[in-house]
Amino acid sequence: VPFALLTDFGTGSIYVGQLKGVLAALAPGHAVVDLTHEIEPQAVDEAAFLLARTFEVFPPATIFLCVVDPGVGSAREILIVEGSERRFVAPDNGLLALAIERLVEPRAFRVGAAHYHGASATFHGRDVIAPVAARLAGGTPPEALGEPVAPGDLAPSPVARPRAEAGGRRIRGRVAHIDRFGDLVTDVDANGRRLPARVRVGGHEVARAARTYADVEPGTVFTYTGSFGTVEVAARNGSAASALGVRRGVEVEVEFAFAEERRG
Amino acid sequence: VPFALLTDFGTGSIYVGQLKGVLAALAPGHAVVDLTHEIEPQAVDEAAFLLARTFEVFPPATIFLCVVDPGVGSAREILIVEGSERRFVAPDNGLLALAIERLVEPRAFRVGAAHYHGASATFHGRDVIAPVAARLAGGTPPEALGEPVAPGDLAPSPVARPRAEAGGRRIRGRVAHIDRFGDLVTDVDANGRRLPARVRVGGHEVARAARTYADVEPGTVFTYTGSFGTVEVAARNGSAASALGVRRGVEVEVEFAFAEERRG
Amino acid sequence: VPFALLTDFGTGSIYVGQLKGVLAALAPGHAVVDLTHEIEPQAVDEAAFLLARTFEVFPPATIFLCVVDPGVGSAREILIVEGSERRFVAPDNGLLALAIERLVEPRAFRVGAAHYHGASATFHGRDVIAPVAARLAGGTPPEALGEPVAPGDLAPSPVARPRAEAGGRRIRGRVAHIDRFGDLVTDVDANGRRLPARVRVGGHEVARAARTYADVEPGTVFTYTGSFGTVEVAARNGSAASALGVRRGVEVEVEFAFAEERRG
Repeated sequence: VPFALLTDFGTGSIYVGQLKGVLAALAPGHAVVDLTHEIEPQAVDEAAFLLARTFEVFPPATIFLCVVDPGVGSAREILIVEGSERRFVAPDNGLLALAIERLVEPRAFRVGAAHYHGASATFHGRDVIAPVAARLAGGTPPEALGEPVAPGDLAPSPVARPRAEAGGRRIRGRVAHIDRFGDLVTDVDANGRRLPARVRVGGHEVARAARTYADVEPGTVFTYTGSFGTVEVAARNGSAASALGVRRGVEVEVEFAFAEERRG
Repeated sequence: VPFALLTDFGTGSIYVGQLKGVLAALAPGHAVVDLTHEIEPQAVDEAAFLLARTFEVFPPATIFLCVVDPGVGSAREILIVEGSERRFVAPDNGLLALAIERLVEPRAFRVGAAHYHGASATFHGRDVIAPVAARLAGGTPPEALGEPVAPGDLAPSPVARPRAEAGGRRIRGRVAHIDRFGDLVTDVDANGRRLPARVRVGGHEVARAARTYADVEPGTVFTYTGSFGTVEVAARNGSAASALGVRRGVEVEVEFAFAEERRG
Repeated sequence: VPFALLTDFGTGSIYVGQLKGVLAALAPGHAVVDLTHEIEPQAVDEAAFLLARTFEVFPPATIFLCVVDPGVGSAREILIVEGSERRFVAPDNGLLALAIERLVEPRAFRVGAAHYHGASATFHGRDVIAPVAARLAGGTPPEALGEPVAPGDLAPSPVARPRAEAGGRRIRGRVAHIDRFGDLVTDVDANGRRLPARVRVGGHEVARAARTYADVEPGTVFTYTGSFGTVEVAARNGSAASALGVRRGVEVEVEFAFAEERRG
């Protein structure tokens, strides 16, 4: 049973170390994988996007511990969600909203009050989520750890979904993530069969589309279908975020052309 | 036998990779956990604080490799300390001073000269500490790796301890750690039963106390009992370090009130 | 079979998490070690230097996944190289050039086209390199994954090698890496038997040589033989990079004196 960790603690934070210490103590012998700890502080929407776009590369039985939790210590619940042979433990703040849509037969549970006994008021990742995940890894079923709740009753996604216009050829979305290279990752699905033609973002219009970095000249800002399956904007050998002055969360408008290489 | 690593190398530094390579070569099959590598460069006091406040979440038999070592290559010794079923390998520079106080029946050993043979002058973490830790993991007792030394003869904590005034209601300490969120973690123990009432830090007075972030308005700077068991100062949805212009190491003065929810 | 990862993704990037997810899915039960993910973006030369200087601390059978890949999606090939009981999977862009020189009987293979089927255009680390590495870990021989290629036909090192002058007492090289402490790591080999006497770098002359940090006064900029076996320049308790205003890649000129403590 691998554990996968997704937090906004910052990589190498002592908080990550403590999570792993608890897992080593309560569920020894399982692999622990850092999915990422570089979620922007308290950015539940970024966590929701990245989790939904990456959890499927992990093997069945993986237990995801997701801790982006600005409401820690308040009345917000902690959830166990299972589906598609994977399990997730996270606060009920929308972090799981996008992943749940991709699960086959998702089931959700609210962790029972007994599991908060003795917990600190500010670090439920260590004191509640990790111990609950360890119980799951040890074979305790979610039914024994909390009450079932209908997926429709969970907190919704913290940001609006991309919306289509012009018969689906134009889609408005957001910059959901910016990576280390300054590539802008949008939440606009490329659906595999369409090449983005034009992207408007931060007052700029990016009209150059290409398949990969090597297809454009150094410095060129261009759009392409990224590895998350969504539209991205990059500058070859540079940072699109710096070149365009764009930050995470800004709106984008994508126009699609039906390119020659379209499939199906 | 899990290994836990605590260094100032920076997370993802190639030095961390080398430590892990040595452990994989000399002690394969053991879990290796990053406690943190984000200790401020050469800040032995920060390492001492964080180690003492977190080692107990790790399981018995854990071996801690602690490498914050500005004196590398000089006459300073390398220690093996054991107690409370855990073991620590670290330079004798005060890094272990606070953890030792929490150990049941601590015993200390100075690593013998033979283990320095062929070591570089600047990377004893890779060349001495990791091989010694691997030997411990393989079952070699500390007695076979070094000479016993009385815990009282070890290097003391590099910074003064918090001191109580006014009959214990006012305590002077320091900002021992600042996390990614800009929360100020002090070394002033909250002892579980007291709510901090007022904190003076960096020329500011923080008079708002709360149990957790969600209990105050966004932007509010407040004090609370943090997850290390000490007094902290945070800004909800912001950085207290930025808001107050405070850096690690500055003095703090904490006043306690006996709050309604006090226990015992 | 340990996996070791070397990339420019940034530590804790979601791309690293995805690589590990693929390995957990396709090759469960193997240790995964982060060598480093802090290679400067697209700096193939830095990756080549650090890999060559560190792979030997890892145990035989280690499989290195090396992803610094500005040409991803273009015609550049992906290589499997084996030798000295270790295996490497990396783009054919010079990243392996320096490691290969240290291998006993290196053999190289170009990964076959079938392994690119269904791959994204921008993330071959996840879609090609990790699956190929998983196959190697599972026992598939490199011959079954690609066509042999003569090591001499591979892409060369992206930067010139250090060159000797004045009968070998003066060597011109480069700053190959700068660590978190601001130490300048050059690619000029110290060969164990010589103490660097003088280093010219970035318009400065560093004439103070010492064995380790503790041998000089705080703040002093000095040169020494570093833990990679090459000449380094550091400032005790400070950053040589800041003090000298030097960035990675700048030229250095090292003069050696035959010091008293020389061996052999």
